[in-house]
Amino acid sequence: MSRLMLVCATVAGLATALPAAAQFQRPDDAVKYRKAGFQIMAAHFGRIGAMANGRVPFDAAAASANADVVAFMSKLPFAGFVDGTSGSAKGEPKANVWSEKAKFEAAASKMQEEVAKLAVAAKANNLDQLKAAFGSAAGSCKSCHDDFRVQ
Amino acid sequence: MSRLMLVCATVAGLATALPAAAQFQRPDDAVKYRKAGFQIMAAHFGRIGAMANGRVPFDAAAASANADVVAFMSKLPFAGFVDGTSGSAKGEPKANVWSEKAKFEAAASKMQEEVAKLAVAAKANNLDQLKAAFGSAAGSCKSCHDDFRVQ
Repeated sequence: MSRLMLVCATVAGLATALPAAAQFQRPDDAVKYRKAGFQIMAAHFGRIGAMANGRVPFDAAAASANADVVAFMSKLPFAGFVDGTSGSAKGEPKANVWSEKAKFEAAASKMQEEVAKLAVAAKANNLDQLKAAFGSAAGSCKSCHDDFRVQ
Repeated sequence: MSRLMLVCATVAGLATALPAAAQFQRPDDAVKYRKAGFQIMAAHFGRIGAMANGRVPFDAAAASANADVVAFMSKLPFAGFVDGTSGSAKGEPKANVWSEKAKFEAAASKMQEEVAKLAVAAKANNLDQLKAAFGSAAGSCKSCHDDFRVQ
């Protein structure tokens, strides 16, 4: 069984088991949690971007390891979007995260699918494939930010 | 192949591939990264603790899902202990993280082993086993905090 399948099986397992387990004592705990999750995801996603954009040399093993972390992390932060935690400052979630919940969840799912594909592409040891998958994943991030995050 | 083995294989893969991939542009980025990583880990560890300590009902699937996240996250934050990021405020790392590097790394490894065991124990669907493994893991956290974190 490939490492990819291991990662996918793990992520899939989390996706089904975590929502019921996601509990926060205070709304602020949920906000901190989701920010931390996105921050870890962004750090690793950015390292892949640096390769895709030619700022650092392509390192297939590093790309794959980072993409695995991104795929894992992509499942976590959404539990932190608890009611009453929208905001108006730059970077905070708009109220339509909750008023357009189905659309928000679809955008989250789209991103999760794209980063799962990125984790697959990162195992091909091919920079062009990595670039293409990174571009699609980055597009799914931007699309959700454009719609649901205060600019 | 069990989900446990999937998780272990994934975590092991990360452990070997990530250090070379861990890069931060600024020391402050590394500090934020490690804090975010510990925060996610603590959130999920705390949910297991709530079961182990009887504050919430034992939910075997949730315990297992949370323990898998803890085991995964346990590998990430240590890349953020870059040189020059010790501190003197409560919760910051003491200088001996770097001056006693081998001891710090051993403490980190001990914690990673204990939370890997916790992920195993959490799959046994047995509260007593969960309690025992949680206690050992919590002890490994505390031991490292006592030695290396400003009180």
